[in-house]
Amino acid sequence: MRVRRSLIDLDDLTAEELAYVFERTAQFEREAPGPLLAGIACVNMFFEESTRTFTSFNLAELRLGADVINLSPENLSLAVKGETLEDTAITLGAMGVCVLVVRHSEPGFSQRVALAFDGHVVNAGDGSHAHPTQALLDIYTLVEEWGDVRGRSVAIVGDVLHSRVAHSTMHGLLRLGCSVVLVGPECFLPASYAREGVRVERDLDAVLPEVDAALLLRIQRERLSDMPISDAQYVEAYRLDGRRLALARKDAVVMHPGPYNRGMELDDAVLAFAGWRYASQVRHGVGVRMAVLDLLVNGR
Amino acid sequence: MRVRRSLIDLDDLTAEELAYVFERTAQFEREAPGPLLAGIACVNMFFEESTRTFTSFNLAELRLGADVINLSPENLSLAVKGETLEDTAITLGAMGVCVLVVRHSEPGFSQRVALAFDGHVVNAGDGSHAHPTQALLDIYTLVEEWGDVRGRSVAIVGDVLHSRVAHSTMHGLLRLGCSVVLVGPECFLPASYAREGVRVERDLDAVLPEVDAALLLRIQRERLSDMPISDAQYVEAYRLDGRRLALARKDAVVMHPGPYNRGMELDDAVLAFAGWRYASQVRHGVGVRMAVLDLLVNGR
Amino acid sequence: MRVRRSLIDLDDLTAEELAYVFERTAQFEREAPGPLLAGIACVNMFFEESTRTFTSFNLAELRLGADVINLSPENLSLAVKGETLEDTAITLGAMGVCVLVVRHSEPGFSQRVALAFDGHVVNAGDGSHAHPTQALLDIYTLVEEWGDVRGRSVAIVGDVLHSRVAHSTMHGLLRLGCSVVLVGPECFLPASYAREGVRVERDLDAVLPEVDAALLLRIQRERLSDMPISDAQYVEAYRLDGRRLALARKDAVVMHPGPYNRGMELDDAVLAFAGWRYASQVRHGVGVRMAVLDLLVNGR
Repeated sequence: MRVRRSLIDLDDLTAEELAYVFERTAQFEREAPGPLLAGIACVNMFFEESTRTFTSFNLAELRLGADVINLSPENLSLAVKGETLEDTAITLGAMGVCVLVVRHSEPGFSQRVALAFDGHVVNAGDGSHAHPTQALLDIYTLVEEWGDVRGRSVAIVGDVLHSRVAHSTMHGLLRLGCSVVLVGPECFLPASYAREGVRVERDLDAVLPEVDAALLLRIQRERLSDMPISDAQYVEAYRLDGRRLALARKDAVVMHPGPYNRGMELDDAVLAFAGWRYASQVRHGVGVRMAVLDLLVNGR
Repeated sequence: MRVRRSLIDLDDLTAEELAYVFERTAQFEREAPGPLLAGIACVNMFFEESTRTFTSFNLAELRLGADVINLSPENLSLAVKGETLEDTAITLGAMGVCVLVVRHSEPGFSQRVALAFDGHVVNAGDGSHAHPTQALLDIYTLVEEWGDVRGRSVAIVGDVLHSRVAHSTMHGLLRLGCSVVLVGPECFLPASYAREGVRVERDLDAVLPEVDAALLLRIQRERLSDMPISDAQYVEAYRLDGRRLALARKDAVVMHPGPYNRGMELDDAVLAFAGWRYASQVRHGVGVRMAVLDLLVNGR
Repeated sequence: MRVRRSLIDLDDLTAEELAYVFERTAQFEREAPGPLLAGIACVNMFFEESTRTFTSFNLAELRLGADVINLSPENLSLAVKGETLEDTAITLGAMGVCVLVVRHSEPGFSQRVALAFDGHVVNAGDGSHAHPTQALLDIYTLVEEWGDVRGRSVAIVGDVLHSRVAHSTMHGLLRLGCSVVLVGPECFLPASYAREGVRVERDLDAVLPEVDAALLLRIQRERLSDMPISDAQYVEAYRLDGRRLALARKDAVVMHPGPYNRGMELDDAVLAFAGWRYASQVRHGVGVRMAVLDLLVNGR
């Protein structure tokens, strides 16, 4: 069995590894995993500020007993000014650092680090490209709910174009035999997204009754100002609120990667909905990150 | 017995709990407490930079074996831009974070976090409102000195109006039967502060001979520029120096929460005075914080 | 035997201690040292951002089981605004902090901290003055290569004037009986550097065939703009490249403290050279720092 050294996108995991990650997540959530990463140095390189992903990785590493070092964005930007990114990666490897968790606004950045680094890289989000551990926690939340995602359908709603979450989670769901309906306005969702297993729709009201789950994406308000659609028009057409929830299946699941804009992508009726799974997603985030780190470092 | 979940102000502790905190402080200072917080995740949310309080909480958490995560002011300000404070607190709770230590310039901020967070919040200073662990270490320093503060009198000198230390420590001393004399100019100490057990005085020279201890407060130099009193006038009337120390009781205790302005609130004669207890205060800071964290998480 | 409390420059170590540090480095690299610093609080005070030295000290402390606290440059600059540096050091000592690792752009800064602090200070670079752990790792790399540096000769090439590495490493090599040839243009290397055991040369091509090792120094591009020498002239005269490597001894060792400017001090031919020891230097950095911390805290 071949152990992948890095997790840049979900494709880096075989189907067996994916199943193993979910199995270990469940196990690590049931009982504390113990120091599976004792003596293993993890460096978190967050070039972009992040509270939830940063804290979640820190928690996962600390619970596994790793030696954890955080480099600040200022520190990192200076490092990369002083030498090439590749040389920084080589230096950290020579020091004995075993795992780099990398977050950056540039698509492909984590991959560049992985090519130079003699150790394991986990992509914690590279621009609009990928965010594999977020995809894992989204999918794990659905697996826990349903047992299996095969034959189910999930709507992903909003700014698909700029969302690394949409890209990673969509590909993961497709691999596992779940169909995906993308819903949003043209400016956030070009028609070219349609492919086998993926429909592109404009009318959220028409889609809601037929899907098993809806994954809402964050709308960056700054972005709307450059768009042919106004705040009010977006809210009118795509906000999930009390009226629209009434169109959804009673047992539908609603998710959001966070942080969510109350009033924009959703309103308070969603937060009170029986199928709202935000807290589960956040909780599983720590579990899947422990499982990924354990898989990369210790293998199966 | 009821364990309070959070420590926002000293009133959150019953008399029994207060006594227990002091007992545990003494115990934890005598011998290393061991990993009483093993597997417990503590997140330090310092929206304001702080060296001494930040380091002291970190030390307390690490000595108890907690998993410690520090969020930087930049990180936190971004988080709170992206979602409401309440949603950030809910997210951290869903992740399994058990303790939040919160420092912010806004009175009531920690309380807002505590209302949303499913865990324990420790207020590490919220503007001019409260700073309960500082009050605990001030009072513990006096308890260690005297055995009991009942029947004693303490002068609190300087900018009472803007000092969270003054507010928290004053209330704590009153609860324990110690009388308090507030001393300062009108602009820093309105006459309305007077109440049962609390005298307001303007003349430090007249107060010094009668009190058992003086707690000097930091003067923010920026603040003086907006005041009807000049630097020189403040120093003339309220600085504790060699001449004034001669008016104090020989066994008087002198304290300061730090950082102190040499030449402003005190001069070098104070630093050489037999009753100067700054180092004890700082040392006890780690002890009382360990005791508080242990009480909140593990109960009595 | 006298245990030095601080390591400000290499002279703070006796010959016996230096030998002991190298012996422990080898030992700690062979097998994990275990928690030799359990319960010991180390505070890293980096007033200047640094990736490699910061990470290396963090790794060394964590591997020894220390309680590690990092103060950010913003935090530290605020601290030192609020009180004197000496008072900050006294406060940290009163808190029970045992080790301060200090990095600052001002020569003599670490020494000032050490005079006030009741514990151990490690100088992690103070301007152009000294960087003793870098010197230790440079020298250890050569000791590992040759067994002994006595009777060998090392060229230090480039901006000697502004380099704390040059100063510390040169003095260390001289103490151990190694001769040093400084090579560079007048503006980076005044003739006054010459002394017993130290030659000053301008012509790198003439020096290369005779030395056992070359330590290349980083050129700050900003600095060149104020200099009578241009980028192109520096490269022409002092860059180590494929042509110049052919002049060197076949078994020569080439080192650089990092971060290196590809194309300025060296080109890619150096990175492929058999004697290029950058990775060994970086690796030994963690080892010598563990050895130094252990020596300071636990003695011999």
